[in-house]
Amino acid sequence: MIDSTAVKAYLIALQGRIVAALEEVDGGTFFRDDWTKVAGEPLGGHGVTCILEDGKVFERAGVGFSHVTGSTMPPSATQGRPELAGRGFEAMGVSLVLHPRNPYAPTVHMNVRFFVARPHAQGANTDDADVWWIGGGMDLTPCYGFDDDAIHFHRHCRDALAPFGARLYPEFKAWCDRYFFLKHRDEMRGVGGIFFDDFNALGFEQSFAMLRAVGDSFLPAYLPIALRRVHTPYGELERAWQALRRGRYVEFNLVFDRGTLFGLQSGGRTESILISMPPLASWRYDVRPETGSPEASLGTRYLAPRDWV
Amino acid sequence: MIDSTAVKAYLIALQGRIVAALEEVDGGTFFRDDWTKVAGEPLGGHGVTCILEDGKVFERAGVGFSHVTGSTMPPSATQGRPELAGRGFEAMGVSLVLHPRNPYAPTVHMNVRFFVARPHAQGANTDDADVWWIGGGMDLTPCYGFDDDAIHFHRHCRDALAPFGARLYPEFKAWCDRYFFLKHRDEMRGVGGIFFDDFNALGFEQSFAMLRAVGDSFLPAYLPIALRRVHTPYGELERAWQALRRGRYVEFNLVFDRGTLFGLQSGGRTESILISMPPLASWRYDVRPETGSPEASLGTRYLAPRDWV
Repeated sequence: MIDSTAVKAYLIALQGRIVAALEEVDGGTFFRDDWTKVAGEPLGGHGVTCILEDGKVFERAGVGFSHVTGSTMPPSATQGRPELAGRGFEAMGVSLVLHPRNPYAPTVHMNVRFFVARPHAQGANTDDADVWWIGGGMDLTPCYGFDDDAIHFHRHCRDALAPFGARLYPEFKAWCDRYFFLKHRDEMRGVGGIFFDDFNALGFEQSFAMLRAVGDSFLPAYLPIALRRVHTPYGELERAWQALRRGRYVEFNLVFDRGTLFGLQSGGRTESILISMPPLASWRYDVRPETGSPEASLGTRYLAPRDWV
Repeated sequence: MIDSTAVKAYLIALQGRIVAALEEVDGGTFFRDDWTKVAGEPLGGHGVTCILEDGKVFERAGVGFSHVTGSTMPPSATQGRPELAGRGFEAMGVSLVLHPRNPYAPTVHMNVRFFVARPHAQGANTDDADVWWIGGGMDLTPCYGFDDDAIHFHRHCRDALAPFGARLYPEFKAWCDRYFFLKHRDEMRGVGGIFFDDFNALGFEQSFAMLRAVGDSFLPAYLPIALRRVHTPYGELERAWQALRRGRYVEFNLVFDRGTLFGLQSGGRTESILISMPPLASWRYDVRPETGSPEASLGTRYLAPRDWV
């Protein structure tokens, strides 16, 4: 009933489509790194990490596919499901982060993943069976806020989920606002989007269809935004602001992001996990943009939950 | 018996001496930020954050003093002492990180701190009394390794501790090697130094004297190294390598450093905690320096435990 082969085929094709579209926009070519990690503790698996650095449009863009298996469920995955602790598991997904060079073009993140917890060994419990779920989402992180961009992005998120129930977008939008939040800065990472996890409520066929709808909506949700910003003129001031904002991106990913932390602490493939890092980030003490400046309006208007659709 | 007023006076004077010495070397002036955080959950207190940015010698240098109190011991402080959970506490310390501009001059970190766990309220347990300890250390993080620098730094660490027992340096040196370790990179943060915590074995007078010996040895341990490297010519290649290595520094501080994580997650003062961040950091995919290059020798010779004295 659960056809993980079909999920895998979809994910690999999605990665290929996204990479091809980004190459066309940028003019550069992604480096494609096929990797295999010998099975064993705690993770084995394989993947394809595609990365473009020093491109014309993208200063650093990573699009990764991975398929890993493990003998014991990671603690980060059993927090909400303690009954699954100790099971073997299988996880596959596509994850991407794009850092455009132009400070007016926003950074974006998208992830679609499929998780299966295998039955306990030896059938000690007759209730044991595969337990699966999907997760993922996408979120937009501008250095300079534009209502049009946030509206465009959120409408595509809403429309992707609409066929599966009108309540999903508001729920996943709120989840995203809560998840991509820098507690120590009291600000959101960006203007949000959607985030979901542990989802199997629609049954396999419809949940998988929803996952595809999210994955398929990424290019139309993001590319038009990037394309209308990449020719905006900018100077050193905008680049310096971008580097500071990328520092916040680093703070979120290394301090709060569960996937990144689990990966780094448990023996995942470091270079593939850290394709999310920006090419350049900076820190300065207690930066306070001038009241009324575009830099200040990022914080006052864009980095708090807001209804964008 | 425990004179925390004397400890505080020492720490404030130490900060002043170090800032004055660094200003003389750099020619620039530190910005001095006096701050107060209203007492309450989880932390209250005050501090003085001194920071120099865009200096001639130091691209970013932070030297902070803080004195905080809390109503409940932080989990990070009771891991090894569960019997103290729930007590009020008082913590004070000086912490510094210096990021020189010249890639041949190493980054350095030093910390001396004093911690007191207050008796449980209402004297429920007659064994209750103040429990105190000291902690700290210093470690050196070069982008380009030099035996002379590692030897000089480690000898000063050893000599500072020698009056308090010959076994302390080897013990604290090994602790430093274990602590400043990037598990996901399988490398040390730098060439190490000394690290210690939960220390009160010598009684208050001698333990406090040891803390002073460590604090007082920082300038002679580090400044001569910085001074002999800051005039070495460098170009874009060395700056790019420095930015990548600073990325590793960020990874350690945000993923592993207990003080940083506890501070950020528990409501500490973010700007003061993050004075440790570099001015500029970069990430590139799977960088592998050419065999035999100075960049490669950092990894092969310097980022693994080694006897430097």
